[in-house]
Amino acid sequence: MNKNIRVIAFDADDTLWENEHYFRKTEDEFCRLLSGFLSKSEIQREFYQTELVNLPLYGYGIKGFILSLVETAIRITNNTHDCRIVQEVIALGKKMLNEPVILIDGVEEVLSTLKDKYRLIVATKGDLLDQERKLKKSGLLHYFHHIEIMTEKDDNSYRKLIRHLDIQAHELLMIGNSLKSDVLPVLNIGGHAIHIPFEVTCIHEQVKEHVDHINFQSLLHIREVPAALNYLT
Amino acid sequence: MNKNIRVIAFDADDTLWENEHYFRKTEDEFCRLLSGFLSKSEIQREFYQTELVNLPLYGYGIKGFILSLVETAIRITNNTHDCRIVQEVIALGKKMLNEPVILIDGVEEVLSTLKDKYRLIVATKGDLLDQERKLKKSGLLHYFHHIEIMTEKDDNSYRKLIRHLDIQAHELLMIGNSLKSDVLPVLNIGGHAIHIPFEVTCIHEQVKEHVDHINFQSLLHIREVPAALNYLT
Repeated sequence: MNKNIRVIAFDADDTLWENEHYFRKTEDEFCRLLSGFLSKSEIQREFYQTELVNLPLYGYGIKGFILSLVETAIRITNNTHDCRIVQEVIALGKKMLNEPVILIDGVEEVLSTLKDKYRLIVATKGDLLDQERKLKKSGLLHYFHHIEIMTEKDDNSYRKLIRHLDIQAHELLMIGNSLKSDVLPVLNIGGHAIHIPFEVTCIHEQVKEHVDHINFQSLLHIREVPAALNYLT
Repeated sequence: MNKNIRVIAFDADDTLWENEHYFRKTEDEFCRLLSGFLSKSEIQREFYQTELVNLPLYGYGIKGFILSLVETAIRITNNTHDCRIVQEVIALGKKMLNEPVILIDGVEEVLSTLKDKYRLIVATKGDLLDQERKLKKSGLLHYFHHIEIMTEKDDNSYRKLIRHLDIQAHELLMIGNSLKSDVLPVLNIGGHAIHIPFEVTCIHEQVKEHVDHINFQSLLHIREVPAALNYLT
């Protein structure tokens, strides 16, 4: 890895703090609400279909997720039910928006170690308000130069990112839990990437997608980042 | 106005393109949907209360607006009605997200005139996905260096903006239709601002809020911007 890295960009959800399990928890509660109508797997299938259709329109984030849950609930109950289920889905959404932020173990020490040597930013999909709220709740705000919210994390979005950071691609290191969003597009444009799978199960999944690139490293835990960087300079 | 301006930031909604009237149109349709329950003014009052409570949680943008409409509909129908109204509200939201972008007259000529002399950006509240979609639909995307989505447009947000644009405050000119969001905080931090009220009625409202500042100009139309800038250099 190149020692000329100037900016380290961190993915947020499931890299700095836990996220995905809040979505799954809400989905479980949603299935319970509708358990009188369909089985859990049928409800999930209905929901995924709705979400897939709506994603280009709503994007990522809790509000679009909730709107898709509402739409699914109305379809499953076939308009025969009263609106109490919708009301409960709206309440589930507000609960999600108010959930505490649980940091991934070791994140704060890592940021503290890196903050004087690199410009640190957050580069994430999702909703700006949600992510800013999480960043404030996390107590990590002061480590970051700014938050970059991206509608998609593809080659072009990363090109735009380095352009407006006024750096060269090889001066960027992206750290995240998704090969597709945080690693491959960054390598494509000439940047550096570190992959840290979120859960042990993910590691097994990810082994199948073997990435072999001079600008790439895979770590088991975010705590290993400073050592991985020191090793190079 | 200072001739060292390097970055011109444009507000988007109701500065580059029409926006507010889509919200009002949807609100009107919403009131029609619920006209069997309450009068229009009562429905509006119920909705504004809901929106006010939800704004810190949902932020600006169409998705939060729709979630608040859904919540209001359920409260007004008192759960006695079936979910068809909610379904129609969801459809109103999708319609809003798919509305065409109607440019304010003259915008393209102005951007074309300014683009080689200044770094142009969009600085807007709202939802990143919505704003990017509108920017793509507008055909204006290629004029802008990047889009800055801000959760609030206050002094601190503009300080963050100039910090990550790597410019001094006096090198920023902000152009927008809101004194509160686009003008006053920018002047507060030492930047320049041009106010262009969106509608004639707004002009009358704004006369009451008289701004007198060496870094400030008020124009009647965006077409006057290049002349206002030339005048200085």
